[in-house]
Amino acid sequence: MSDSTTEFSKDIITRWPFSDRATAIEANAIREILKISGRSGIINFAGGLPAAELFPETHLKAASEMVFKKHGPKALQYSLTQGIYELREILAERSSTPEMKFSADTIQITTGSQQALDLIGRAFLNPGDYVLTEAPTYLGALSAFNFYQARYCTVPMDEHGMIVEMAEEKIKECKPKLIYVVPNFQNPSGITMSAERREALVEVAARYQIPIIDDNPYGELRYSGEPAPSLKTLGGNAVISLGTFSKIISPGIRIGWVAACREVAAMIEKVKQSTDLHSTTFCQYLVYEYIMAGHLDSHIELIKEAYRKRRDVMINTMANEFPEEVKFTRPEGGLFLWITLPEGISASEVFDKAVDAGVACVPGKPFYPHNDNDQSFRVNFCHASEDNIVEGIRRLASVLRTELS
Amino acid sequence: MSDSTTEFSKDIITRWPFSDRATAIEANAIREILKISGRSGIINFAGGLPAAELFPETHLKAASEMVFKKHGPKALQYSLTQGIYELREILAERSSTPEMKFSADTIQITTGSQQALDLIGRAFLNPGDYVLTEAPTYLGALSAFNFYQARYCTVPMDEHGMIVEMAEEKIKECKPKLIYVVPNFQNPSGITMSAERREALVEVAARYQIPIIDDNPYGELRYSGEPAPSLKTLGGNAVISLGTFSKIISPGIRIGWVAACREVAAMIEKVKQSTDLHSTTFCQYLVYEYIMAGHLDSHIELIKEAYRKRRDVMINTMANEFPEEVKFTRPEGGLFLWITLPEGISASEVFDKAVDAGVACVPGKPFYPHNDNDQSFRVNFCHASEDNIVEGIRRLASVLRTELS
Repeated sequence: MSDSTTEFSKDIITRWPFSDRATAIEANAIREILKISGRSGIINFAGGLPAAELFPETHLKAASEMVFKKHGPKALQYSLTQGIYELREILAERSSTPEMKFSADTIQITTGSQQALDLIGRAFLNPGDYVLTEAPTYLGALSAFNFYQARYCTVPMDEHGMIVEMAEEKIKECKPKLIYVVPNFQNPSGITMSAERREALVEVAARYQIPIIDDNPYGELRYSGEPAPSLKTLGGNAVISLGTFSKIISPGIRIGWVAACREVAAMIEKVKQSTDLHSTTFCQYLVYEYIMAGHLDSHIELIKEAYRKRRDVMINTMANEFPEEVKFTRPEGGLFLWITLPEGISASEVFDKAVDAGVACVPGKPFYPHNDNDQSFRVNFCHASEDNIVEGIRRLASVLRTELS
Repeated sequence: MSDSTTEFSKDIITRWPFSDRATAIEANAIREILKISGRSGIINFAGGLPAAELFPETHLKAASEMVFKKHGPKALQYSLTQGIYELREILAERSSTPEMKFSADTIQITTGSQQALDLIGRAFLNPGDYVLTEAPTYLGALSAFNFYQARYCTVPMDEHGMIVEMAEEKIKECKPKLIYVVPNFQNPSGITMSAERREALVEVAARYQIPIIDDNPYGELRYSGEPAPSLKTLGGNAVISLGTFSKIISPGIRIGWVAACREVAAMIEKVKQSTDLHSTTFCQYLVYEYIMAGHLDSHIELIKEAYRKRRDVMINTMANEFPEEVKFTRPEGGLFLWITLPEGISASEVFDKAVDAGVACVPGKPFYPHNDNDQSFRVNFCHASEDNIVEGIRRLASVLRTELS
């Protein structure tokens, strides 16, 4: 049915009484950018998508057959709000460290990490509450918390992550309800928080009794360097960890999780129930059978191998082609790196010229809670092929050279 | 890992700063009841579950294979917040009537109907807003709207549904933001709203410019009688219709939808984005391929045949065994019927005795927004086998006879 045939015979309501909060939601800043980036002929580094050609289709298909064979009607029926026990048990094991033991009861399955962020907002935020974030920070977290009328206090980052020394002043000033960080290969900057900064963050959080949201979608995708201790290992019950299968199996199955102490896990379960009863039973069993067949760890190795190469190709091309004044991060993992332009150059303007030249990445402004920086780009280095990475970065370099000449 | 091994080495946060609204959520009233009902030896009419033995496993398995074969990586990747186009197009066709045409753009896919209810609350309700409901009404809608700090004005029902003549006074008094109804085979009462009442409801809604939420999970499950015109056919853009595959395919895949005018559909899309980005791509394709293989309508016939028999067995057994003073509805479809006890008998007390006698159904109190009626039971007539229905109703009848003697 084409749109033109749509008609409502009776337009009874002339003015819709939407809620104040819904009316206040601004159009997603990067949605228009993603539309433009999707035009044909454009090499697209803008999206947040993992590489579809690496999805483990064959093994997921086998897992799907196993779900029908082994679980039958149970996989198609309503299930617990917490999530199916089998999967929570596996996630508890994978989340545990020698210092920090999780059980199935301290894991809550969510419809991707985005739902975890929404439920965190639901569980913790009163209107006007402050959240302390890195600047820049993950846009999806801002959208989730914005609905709960959060305000933000931000702490700048350097190559070691949030400059925690600067956090205490903000904490004193704003009394934030939560600290939100993406400590590993941050979206958007690609930066990883150092061990010292992690310890300092946990220390200050403890002193001021502020829970830390440890959003960790990329933690298993390390291509080089040595991991720092996880925040949850250092921070005990103060740390609420968010994980997802979106980047290591498939985002379309929408399975993420929260690992937290029992009191927090129970509250997340309570606030989830009225939002969707539970996440899809079928996809939970799908992931469970995929993991039980022993494919996850080898698949992660395969993704890491491919993404490592793409990262290296992109960084090498940037190093060779970019004007010296343009800086970029060299992430040890994840999906994204971050370009910083010299003072006085507007990323929004460069974006338009880059699109004309056939390449797109996301101007960094919407990743700043106060929209106060227009000097950066987020670049996805995992989604395009190596050839397209070289060609796309050359196009971008050419635009930047013209811009800076 | 057993629960006993759970330990958080550092209990840093001593008092969790949960939000006021999360703290205010009361434990789901029927959850404890469902726990008790699940004890072995108890014939359970309490749950809201469809019959698992009727799930179309074989055809869903074939559809799953087709998803991998035809859609491959696309079914595993991120997708539109609105939902996949193919499925929305089918739902637009299925939702359209001669008076009311829908297009793919006026359908929003949701994670089951529960998410649709949550998104309706998100899109429309400011704290303190009134929602006008039937009394009794669907508990899941109350949980969803409660989070948005809704208040309720209620209109009693008779065998023709909401007594719409009594609605106008409530509307004048409370100025409700929304009217929420389950017009077909209502959960919990099993009652269907008559054509005259539907017309009257649409008329009063139009006069006072109040959108009607038409929650319709059971509409396709009619076992006898003739359908009344749908609210959306009568009510034009004032009616926001909620549908789900939970009762006609499987609840575990968590796929529901909202059919509304373009302005409302766009708002629901906007408020959904920050809650979970989108519902699972894979399950949307699964439903799509299942429907495209031509199985849905014949499967609905198969379910109807089985449920019709179970309903008849239950109603006949009640008619034969129940004391005359105990009244019950005779639903023309859906999953539930409603028992009303004589004045002075407490359903909560009868519940305890029924459990001791080995049968459970849900006391009706939580289905009343003001908890002001303890004289009724909701009974699921679709989930148990015919033999268990006979035995369970006999047990209940015996308790009722003792109670009334």
